[in-house]
Amino acid sequence: MDIIEKIKDFAGRFNQGLDAYFPMPQTLDCRVVEAMKYSVKNGGKRLRPFMLCETAKIFGVEENVAMPVATALEMLHSYSLIHDDLPAMDNDDLRRGKPTCHKAFDEATAILAGDGLLTYAFGIISSDSLRISPQIRCRLINMLSSAAGSFDGMVAGQMIDLAVENSDLNKIQNKESVIKRIEELKTGRLLRYACEAGAVLGGADEKERAAIVEYSRKIGRSFQIVDDILDAIGDEKLVGKTLKKDKNQNKLTFVNLYGLETARKMSDDLIAEAKLALSVFGEKAFVLHELADYMGSRQY
Amino acid sequence: MDIIEKIKDFAGRFNQGLDAYFPMPQTLDCRVVEAMKYSVKNGGKRLRPFMLCETAKIFGVEENVAMPVATALEMLHSYSLIHDDLPAMDNDDLRRGKPTCHKAFDEATAILAGDGLLTYAFGIISSDSLRISPQIRCRLINMLSSAAGSFDGMVAGQMIDLAVENSDLNKIQNKESVIKRIEELKTGRLLRYACEAGAVLGGADEKERAAIVEYSRKIGRSFQIVDDILDAIGDEKLVGKTLKKDKNQNKLTFVNLYGLETARKMSDDLIAEAKLALSVFGEKAFVLHELADYMGSRQY
Repeated sequence: MDIIEKIKDFAGRFNQGLDAYFPMPQTLDCRVVEAMKYSVKNGGKRLRPFMLCETAKIFGVEENVAMPVATALEMLHSYSLIHDDLPAMDNDDLRRGKPTCHKAFDEATAILAGDGLLTYAFGIISSDSLRISPQIRCRLINMLSSAAGSFDGMVAGQMIDLAVENSDLNKIQNKESVIKRIEELKTGRLLRYACEAGAVLGGADEKERAAIVEYSRKIGRSFQIVDDILDAIGDEKLVGKTLKKDKNQNKLTFVNLYGLETARKMSDDLIAEAKLALSVFGEKAFVLHELADYMGSRQY
Repeated sequence: MDIIEKIKDFAGRFNQGLDAYFPMPQTLDCRVVEAMKYSVKNGGKRLRPFMLCETAKIFGVEENVAMPVATALEMLHSYSLIHDDLPAMDNDDLRRGKPTCHKAFDEATAILAGDGLLTYAFGIISSDSLRISPQIRCRLINMLSSAAGSFDGMVAGQMIDLAVENSDLNKIQNKESVIKRIEELKTGRLLRYACEAGAVLGGADEKERAAIVEYSRKIGRSFQIVDDILDAIGDEKLVGKTLKKDKNQNKLTFVNLYGLETARKMSDDLIAEAKLALSVFGEKAFVLHELADYMGSRQY
């Protein structure tokens, strides 16, 4: 099986498990649960859950032990997409080729569906039904709150991104450091969480954990650069969202900043560095190696 | 000290501790943290934190052990107010006499500030720095996620509330059961959490926990009835928000349903029942007794 098949295979198992997380209430309040389910089930490659489970496997953790944590992470990721798409934020109508949550339902329902998914993510990881010690569960929750949060996490990244969009680009000093910080927070922190959570689940020692974090940082930066490249020259049908938005909007992207060729070179270097960080694990990290190559060359 | 002074005294201690929870980042992203701080620091009687700490005290838990959990609960409560006030939801301009978060900042910032507070609440309770075992911390997180969530919690309550507002009141069967369900979910679940978390922190046995839950349910129902009464006949300056909104809007309230006199009687009965539930604790529950009386007779 090549990496694309492995990811698809995993996504199949992941998706199959999703329904059990959404018992439909038999009352007036099923609308918000429907909106949550609609958004989480709306395609997606399940890259973060895949990364989490594959990292955990390096340390001998079975997929079905890691899966609930991976599911919580994907729910949190889905919440961030729902809220990012809102009219007051990026105002997007399409997500993976389908109407965004506030288009398919309405704005109030979309806000509540995002709130519901974010809240649920922490409920899932804290559950006593997991085969994970309370100590590790608390650590996973604390890390997730920090990765997704407003101090040095995803919410902070979205805030800076909006601030930059609303400002005059010419007035921004150190464009490179600003864009790096946005991508590190907005996309990087959750990708890093995926890997680091897998390592923490598996009881990684300091050196191993540092190697995994290094890998995830490089992967995360490449991920955003490839996103920018796809926005500039990708196939709209494959990518499943409105492209070339960055060019029209007042947006700081790697492609706008460095040009296509340099951006591509940066991404390639990061992928090579990410793989190098895995050397401590030898053969055991084979799938993460493959994943790095895939992420550097993906077409959607 | 009477109960009003006790609550004020506690609120003083609570507020003093708040700043430490909001280290201001020295970067572009401080706007969202400012909005979070603005909303949490915007007055409020700190009733939920008070209830949590007072319940914990019955079981011998020191206030400074319970305080971080109480702070997390208040942050979560603040997030719910920020999102409820949004234009797509209740569209309120004033909260406790000051501009709501989206008025003082902007809509995108308010959405993110709410997200940030909700995320932070779980980060606080999961922290290894708390003097609470990981087992209890996980349980507190799980209970909070359930109380605030979309299946049988606060988010579900807000969803039903919006659905009822957008529907023709005459078409609703069982008005009483709908309004009871809305208040149980929207306000009741967090008030119940305040008390139940205090009991769980203190290692309450089943009987004690059931008594505390009974107390909090009665208190919660009375709380919402009094809110409706204050909306109808309260002093706008004291209450600090636009009143008589419920009469103008298509809103299902206890006062609209039963009239003032019956609503007042219902609240008084609930308070009496709440106090009765505490009998198992004897003298130790004195403050919760006082609190019940206060909550039934509050003017704001």
